[in-house]
Amino acid sequence: MSITVVGSVAFDSIETPAGRMERCLGGAATYFSLSASFFTDVRVIAVVGEDFGKRQEAVFQARKIDTRGIEHTAGKSFFWEGSYLENINEAKTHNTELNVFASFNPKIPEAYRDSEFLFLANIDPVLQRRVREAMPQARLVAGDTMNYWIKDHRAALLEVLKGLDILLINDTETKMLAGNNNLVQAARAVMSMGPKTLVVKHGEYGATLFHGNAQNGGAFRAPALPLEEVVDPTGAGDSFAGGFFGYLASQPEQSPAAFRHAMFYGSVMGSFACERFGTERMQKLTRPEIDARFNIFRELTHLA
Amino acid sequence: MSITVVGSVAFDSIETPAGRMERCLGGAATYFSLSASFFTDVRVIAVVGEDFGKRQEAVFQARKIDTRGIEHTAGKSFFWEGSYLENINEAKTHNTELNVFASFNPKIPEAYRDSEFLFLANIDPVLQRRVREAMPQARLVAGDTMNYWIKDHRAALLEVLKGLDILLINDTETKMLAGNNNLVQAARAVMSMGPKTLVVKHGEYGATLFHGNAQNGGAFRAPALPLEEVVDPTGAGDSFAGGFFGYLASQPEQSPAAFRHAMFYGSVMGSFACERFGTERMQKLTRPEIDARFNIFRELTHLA
Repeated sequence: MSITVVGSVAFDSIETPAGRMERCLGGAATYFSLSASFFTDVRVIAVVGEDFGKRQEAVFQARKIDTRGIEHTAGKSFFWEGSYLENINEAKTHNTELNVFASFNPKIPEAYRDSEFLFLANIDPVLQRRVREAMPQARLVAGDTMNYWIKDHRAALLEVLKGLDILLINDTETKMLAGNNNLVQAARAVMSMGPKTLVVKHGEYGATLFHGNAQNGGAFRAPALPLEEVVDPTGAGDSFAGGFFGYLASQPEQSPAAFRHAMFYGSVMGSFACERFGTERMQKLTRPEIDARFNIFRELTHLA
Repeated sequence: MSITVVGSVAFDSIETPAGRMERCLGGAATYFSLSASFFTDVRVIAVVGEDFGKRQEAVFQARKIDTRGIEHTAGKSFFWEGSYLENINEAKTHNTELNVFASFNPKIPEAYRDSEFLFLANIDPVLQRRVREAMPQARLVAGDTMNYWIKDHRAALLEVLKGLDILLINDTETKMLAGNNNLVQAARAVMSMGPKTLVVKHGEYGATLFHGNAQNGGAFRAPALPLEEVVDPTGAGDSFAGGFFGYLASQPEQSPAAFRHAMFYGSVMGSFACERFGTERMQKLTRPEIDARFNIFRELTHLA
C-alpha cells in the first residue's frame, strides 16, 4: 500500500566529530521517503526552491519515490545548519532559514488521493491538519512533531493529535507534551489526546511502543544497535519513522506482531542513517543489508 | 553455588518526589545480597557500627543471608544522604559519612572460602583487590566501581580490572574509564583492561551486555520495564547486579543463554528496587512475583 508523506525537503550543513558537510540534501520528508521506499511506494508533498535541481531529484527517482507533489517555486529551499560537537545525540542549531517553506501551502496531487497511509512529518500543525483533512481516505495516519510546536502552538497541535492513529516523538517531547516527567504516565496522557499508538524514540537506546495498557503487555521495546561509529545522526528519527511506517504499510494487516516488527525495522533504518553524512547511507542501502541488520537486532534481544 | 559479596552496608537518608525516608538500611552489599538471595546462597563481607542492630540483622536473616562476615565495630555505620528531586535518574549527594567504613579491612570468614562466585561491590579498589586475592578459589569474579575511583584511583582500579571476569558499570562510567564517548569503542577499551564481559547499565533504558566482538552477536540488550512510578531508584544498580550474578551462580553452566537470562533477571530486580523506599520492596518480594515480571520483560521484547 502506498504512503503519502508531507514534510520538509531541505538542505543541511552539518558538523559532527567526523567532519563537516555543506548543503547536503536533507529534510524530514526526504529521510522518511528514502527509508520507507525500501518497504512500499512513497509519494511526497513538499516545497523546494530553485536550488533543488536534477541532482536532488535523482536521489528520489533512484528510489522510485513519487515527487509529483514536490512544488517548485522561486527562491531558496529550507536550510538548516547544525552541529553535534559536544553531544553526538543532540543537535545544536546554528541557523534555520525557512525560505520557500515560510509560505508552504501543501497541494495534493490527484494521483495521491488513494493513499491509505499518511505520514505527517514535523511541520506546522496547521498544515498537518489541512493535509489530513484533504485526505479522508487515509485509514492509518501517523505523525511527528517537535518541542517548538508543543510549546508555542499547542492548540493547533492538539487538533492534529485528535486525528492521529500513531504519534512518533522522543522522550523529551513526550514528557513536555504531557507535562509529566514519568514516561509511562506521560505516554498515557499523550494517548488520551488522540493517538491510539505512541512510539517514543530513545535515540541510542532504541524506542518504546505504547499501545493500550502500557504497563502490562501493551508496551514493546525495540533496541538500537550499539554503533561503532556515529558519523551523523541527522535524520535518524525520520528514517526510523520511514522504516516503521513503511513496513506497516507493506503488511496485509497491521497486527500487534506487525507493529513489533515495524519497531525493529524502524530501529534498523535509524541505525543505517547515522553511518554516513546526510542521506548518503540511505542512497546506497540495499534490502539484503536491511534484512541482515534486522537479524542482528533480533539476535541482540533474543533471550535464548 | 554460593556468592560472597564485599561492599557497603549503610544507612541512607533519601528524598525523592515521592517523599523522604530517614536512615533506612542501604549500601551496595545490602541491595546486592537481598537481590541475589532469591537465586542462590549469599555471604556478606562488610563493616557496621553500633547503630546496626537486631532490626537490620533481621532483614538479612529473613533472606537467609550469611552475615558472619559483617564485622561489628565501635562507632557509626556508613551514612549517605541524597536526593532525586530534579532528576529521578540521578542522585544528588548531600552528605557522605564514611564512619566505620573509613578503616574497613575486610576479614573473610573461613566458612566463606569455598564460594566459587565473588562480587566486589563499589568500594576502594585496594580493598576489592585484597578480597579477590584472599579468595583464589573464586572462579567467576564480578565487580562494580564508580566515577570517584575511576578519576582519582585509576592505578589501583586497573589492578582490580585485571582480575575481573565481569564488570558492571553505567554508561558514564564506561565512557570515563575508556576516555571515549562512543559506547561500543569504550566498551572494547574497557574489556581490554581485563573483564571478558562488560555489562553497561542504562538506567531506565535497560542494560547492554558486551561479550567478545561487540558489534556482531557479542552484544545483548535487556530492556528496563517502563515504570508507572519510580519511588526511589537508590540501589537499583546493585539490585540489578544481584539479580544478574545471583542467577548466573544458580545455573549449572554460565552459557551465553544463561548470561542473557541473567541480564533479564538483573533488569527485573532493578525494576522492583525502584518501587519502594530503600530495601522495602526487596524485603517483601517473592519468587513468583519475580518470575511473573520476567515474563512481562520477555513479552516486552518478544518480536512476534
